[in-house]
Amino acid sequence: MRTCIRLAFVFCLLISTSRLFAQAIPTDIKDAALELRDAAMQDSIAYDVVESLTMEVGPRSAGSAGDAAAVQWAVKKLNSLGFERVHADTVEVPHWDRGTLDVRINAPYAQSLVATSLGGSVGTPHEGVEAPIVRVASLAELRALTSEQLQGRIAYIDHVMERAKDGEGYSTAGRIRACGHVVAAELGARATIIRSAGTSTHRVAHTGSMRMNKIPGTIPAVALANADADILTYAVNSGKPVTVRLHSTARELPRVISANVIGEVRGSGKLANEIVILGAHLDSWDLGTGAIDDGAGVAIVTAAAKLILDSGHRPRRTIRVVLYANEEFGLSGAESYATNHRSKIEDHVVGLEADFGDGAVWEFSSRVAEDALDIIDELHTLLEDIGIERGDNEADGGADLTPLRKAGMPVLSMTQDGTHYFDYHHTVDDTLDKIDRDDLNQNVAAYVTAAYVAANIERDFGRLPIDTSEKTCAAEFDGDD
Amino acid sequence: MRTCIRLAFVFCLLISTSRLFAQAIPTDIKDAALELRDAAMQDSIAYDVVESLTMEVGPRSAGSAGDAAAVQWAVKKLNSLGFERVHADTVEVPHWDRGTLDVRINAPYAQSLVATSLGGSVGTPHEGVEAPIVRVASLAELRALTSEQLQGRIAYIDHVMERAKDGEGYSTAGRIRACGHVVAAELGARATIIRSAGTSTHRVAHTGSMRMNKIPGTIPAVALANADADILTYAVNSGKPVTVRLHSTARELPRVISANVIGEVRGSGKLANEIVILGAHLDSWDLGTGAIDDGAGVAIVTAAAKLILDSGHRPRRTIRVVLYANEEFGLSGAESYATNHRSKIEDHVVGLEADFGDGAVWEFSSRVAEDALDIIDELHTLLEDIGIERGDNEADGGADLTPLRKAGMPVLSMTQDGTHYFDYHHTVDDTLDKIDRDDLNQNVAAYVTAAYVAANIERDFGRLPIDTSEKTCAAEFDGDD
Repeated sequence: MRTCIRLAFVFCLLISTSRLFAQAIPTDIKDAALELRDAAMQDSIAYDVVESLTMEVGPRSAGSAGDAAAVQWAVKKLNSLGFERVHADTVEVPHWDRGTLDVRINAPYAQSLVATSLGGSVGTPHEGVEAPIVRVASLAELRALTSEQLQGRIAYIDHVMERAKDGEGYSTAGRIRACGHVVAAELGARATIIRSAGTSTHRVAHTGSMRMNKIPGTIPAVALANADADILTYAVNSGKPVTVRLHSTARELPRVISANVIGEVRGSGKLANEIVILGAHLDSWDLGTGAIDDGAGVAIVTAAAKLILDSGHRPRRTIRVVLYANEEFGLSGAESYATNHRSKIEDHVVGLEADFGDGAVWEFSSRVAEDALDIIDELHTLLEDIGIERGDNEADGGADLTPLRKAGMPVLSMTQDGTHYFDYHHTVDDTLDKIDRDDLNQNVAAYVTAAYVAANIERDFGRLPIDTSEKTCAAEFDGDD
Repeated sequence: MRTCIRLAFVFCLLISTSRLFAQAIPTDIKDAALELRDAAMQDSIAYDVVESLTMEVGPRSAGSAGDAAAVQWAVKKLNSLGFERVHADTVEVPHWDRGTLDVRINAPYAQSLVATSLGGSVGTPHEGVEAPIVRVASLAELRALTSEQLQGRIAYIDHVMERAKDGEGYSTAGRIRACGHVVAAELGARATIIRSAGTSTHRVAHTGSMRMNKIPGTIPAVALANADADILTYAVNSGKPVTVRLHSTARELPRVISANVIGEVRGSGKLANEIVILGAHLDSWDLGTGAIDDGAGVAIVTAAAKLILDSGHRPRRTIRVVLYANEEFGLSGAESYATNHRSKIEDHVVGLEADFGDGAVWEFSSRVAEDALDIIDELHTLLEDIGIERGDNEADGGADLTPLRKAGMPVLSMTQDGTHYFDYHHTVDDTLDKIDRDDLNQNVAAYVTAAYVAANIERDFGRLPIDTSEKTCAAEFDGDD
């Protein structure tokens, strides 16, 4: 017995020691990945893709004519680039139309304000909504109001989003955008106005989705440009009663059939049925031409896969580019994909998503099984030369990969510099001229390196525990306001 | 005879030598001016003024409700600051309303474009204008077209304005804006589209006035945001025929009574009837809140005069702050002022105008009589410490001083850094947050120094030759395209 235990101990020691010295990624795969990485830095495909999408299609919000044009564009583009099994997987999407919006201060003096309806907002009655303003600086302050204080009034949530490399300011600002109207409606407010969840110092308002926006009886919700929030706050600070008038024709239209557009670089050999997902979303908000959100992502994953396609060597696993429908307005594409592929979730070995603009990648993080972390460590050594630090194993992988991740698929995450992302995010100002070619290519380099390695090593990244949690406003309120 | 000539020669030599060593500006005046200059750098009045004007009044284009509110605001503000003889001098102004505008590419694919009507543009017929695009890069290229090439089409003048410290790029871009529609209409075009005369890289279009915009039969004229001009140019460069649809409800309304608002720091003694003008314009375009154009100017000249008012020493000459009506749309206020004061033009000893935003002053130039240049030289020594170089004697003094300058009044000019001015100029983005307090105060320092010296020295700046030239598009075409 003892002898056996000793032998087992020695055996285990040997295994773990050999792991210490063994390569997680074979040299030939590393060399090929580095070659692709360096080629990506000089490539023009990514820019060409985002240029074509933004210039020829432009705005493409779920259910709109632009959305349909984008699906056609994507099928044509992936085919013309030589991808395999290119097809459009139909997805039913909501179709919200922002119509027109007019927001103005009527007292103590008249000022017209630049604003935009939040995604899914109902319109106002035909005569508009005119009411006194109650200003709060946070969701916590809003929740502390009584219905007596807010009843019949307009809630104004005046939180200034902070600029940060990691986009951390969006966490609080995005929560206010998502859930502010729910709290305000419960307290009897007639409308909600927020300061934009964005950092633009130009006169553009940031739209974006709201939670529970399909609940009947909800109230109109709009966001002011930062300069216009300054104007409203100045009026409130005058101490005089401030009334604002809103008129909006926003409305929900019948649901529409859109599609996830998919193209592959087919694998070969025994691992060919296993899939490395490269995801981005094809839809955009209706205001800009969707260059940083998410034309850049479409460009990055398409260019990364195209480089592998053109390398002349089939990967072992299949690399699947998925250009998701309707990320912005409720992840219909992501959910539809996960539902359609439920029986083959286990084949999805790992996923990478690009949905944070064109900022250079500065950190590589992951969410993989513990015993696959040596692969991540070694993969990171291939990325150090292009300025990428090693992150943790807590990556969430991105919105469109959420259903697959929650079903157990590991994710790799290329964390981009978001210092300027929220200057343009969800605004009319999200246009091609905001794209930096070098930064875009550095992204392609990072994605192609990781995708190539993931598609060619014998080992995989294990599986993640099943996650059944749901994001609701009630859950959010336990967070930091 | 010879003796007399010799004596005269010696006399003249003595005079000029004494001038060489004499002070053009007495030491006590210099000391007081320097004290005011340094106080200005720490002052808060200028910012308070531009904040109040932009926040409480906001857009104030000639003839609008905001214009009337601005006149009331200005009278109240100058009175509350303690200015003397505050009054509103009525001025008849045009009243143009931009209405709504919709511009979109219809072929080879659909894209909506961010655009703004140029000031004075007529609207389209009810059904809009839809026509093929003919793109040119300059006025010269436009003028070289035949009517066969342009008849029934839309002229697209795609000139990219250059960024420059001295704003030089505006000379060509502004000429295209002012005169492009005249050329296009003569060649039978149905509308004119220009790339904005501005350097914004955000999605805002730059409006601005046009010459001869009252000619019957003129055509609609609009400016695209730079990003949108990129989209249109990309479409043209595809080689496929491009058609654009415009719909505009812009129109001229009946003329309205507005006012120049005037306040004084009264002089004392024998020079009290002589006037040093500090001018800026009270109106703004209708898109932004008029912070840099020309809230900053209103703030600078008001704060400069207020510092002298509060110094406790009456100046010898009267300092007259003139906040002109309708600079943007044809200089009605400036012309009205000159007409009303025709008999007293000679009393206007010198003028300074502030109408180039809040950029720091980097050059001090003049247009004065030759024999007053020693005053300018010495005045400049008081400005060197705050970063101001010595310019030439070719200053034009600014738009609102033009009628007085052409009638012989010398002008002093504080040339501001215009590197960023045309990012905001005539756009919705011209708001308070663009104002830099320190730069604004450096302007006040420069203006108060010059105004104090001009109001207190015994000597004056002579007179300029009468100038009867007129700016017309025909004259412009002789210039460099």
